[in-house]
Amino acid sequence: MSQIIYGIHPVKEALKSSYLQVEKILIGTQTPHPSLQAVIDLATQRKIPVTLTTRESLEPMTKGGVHQNVVGLVKETSYADVAEILSRWKKDGTKALILILDGIQDPQNFGSLIRTASGCGVHGMIIPRDRSVGITPVAVKASAGAVAHLPIARVVNIAATIEALKKEGIWVYGASGEAKDLIYEVDLDMNLAIVIGAEGKGIRPLVKKKCDRLFSIPMKGPVSSFNAGVSGGIILYEVMRQRSLPHNQPL
Amino acid sequence: MSQIIYGIHPVKEALKSSYLQVEKILIGTQTPHPSLQAVIDLATQRKIPVTLTTRESLEPMTKGGVHQNVVGLVKETSYADVAEILSRWKKDGTKALILILDGIQDPQNFGSLIRTASGCGVHGMIIPRDRSVGITPVAVKASAGAVAHLPIARVVNIAATIEALKKEGIWVYGASGEAKDLIYEVDLDMNLAIVIGAEGKGIRPLVKKKCDRLFSIPMKGPVSSFNAGVSGGIILYEVMRQRSLPHNQPL
Repeated sequence: MSQIIYGIHPVKEALKSSYLQVEKILIGTQTPHPSLQAVIDLATQRKIPVTLTTRESLEPMTKGGVHQNVVGLVKETSYADVAEILSRWKKDGTKALILILDGIQDPQNFGSLIRTASGCGVHGMIIPRDRSVGITPVAVKASAGAVAHLPIARVVNIAATIEALKKEGIWVYGASGEAKDLIYEVDLDMNLAIVIGAEGKGIRPLVKKKCDRLFSIPMKGPVSSFNAGVSGGIILYEVMRQRSLPHNQPL
Repeated sequence: MSQIIYGIHPVKEALKSSYLQVEKILIGTQTPHPSLQAVIDLATQRKIPVTLTTRESLEPMTKGGVHQNVVGLVKETSYADVAEILSRWKKDGTKALILILDGIQDPQNFGSLIRTASGCGVHGMIIPRDRSVGITPVAVKASAGAVAHLPIARVVNIAATIEALKKEGIWVYGASGEAKDLIYEVDLDMNLAIVIGAEGKGIRPLVKKKCDRLFSIPMKGPVSSFNAGVSGGIILYEVMRQRSLPHNQPL
């Protein structure tokens, strides 16, 4: 099975990726303009077949999405495994930063989190096999192609995976609206995996119990939660910020 | 003209709001379950008419959106004006925090920014009248109803508005990918308006020139930008963080 990705930026990122295997590129015009030509050149260079077709023939594939006259057929993404994420961390030589998403449902949020994670130096992402969105075309698009640069592992049992991470010397901290500790009071400058729960529901109780520590993001006024993609951005940014301080000084 | 909002949470927030004027509620079932009943009760209490109809009659209004059997007709949002935002700040007695969006196009990002701004204690938002998304149904939904609690002003000339804010003693800082100063090196604990530019394009040069200072968000790896909603979340969170420090200590 192959899946569809579309839009100049996502297709270009896929062509550059070592995690995605592009099978074919479809161009929706016979006279590609320069930025489409750049996609064609990249595909040719990587020996991936390119077909020039019509705009109309791309419409049913992208179901109303903004495809910018380019569609890529990508081999159904093979998820990474946790070992691959750990070896990426060890090779990297920095403190571990792993993101565990406990049941995110919305592909927009998932894609946005992949994009943010990739920009914050996350070593890999872990999601549950069931009750979670996977790497769908909408998620790939929302990630602006960043899915191509981040290993994502799908596991049967998040609680067991957390145990395995702990054995590797990684602390596991969970984001929870009810936690008393505010994120900027918590030291994040260590080997760390961060757990974010599903939109509206949070982390499941069994997974929460496995966390070494819980923290919350402060919030003002009548709004009771942030969008999951925004929460993830705030948390990962705070890790980056603390790790860049000269003498690790949380509040 | 009235506009459509839908979904239990957004409709409930609209009913509680002092910025939105709900004209009518439509319920897509004759046997409302408890959380729909709560919406009906709230509407009755506020003397807003409720009509019980069929699920099918809601579909064409919400165009495939998840409406959860409830639609609200809201009087086309009357935007606030800048004076209203300033008076809200002065009444509040805290340091000013105003968000200026210079040409955001995506209603999802716009709604997400409204939600985040509301949760970070922003006094109001300013957008340009042209070349910008407005308060559309998708934005209202993405804001999770927070649009109901945040004054949003639409102005003809952002550069002139910035001048007016400066005269009120408010500093204007802009987010720009090329800026040398990293956000956590910049003191944000003062009366402040923050400018965020359009997705992919950033702040327009004329507006950028009006900013007192520019800062960037650090980024790692192959990703070259964050989603505008996520960037906004990171920036507003950093303002909150700095303002909560005992002795205002940026890096």
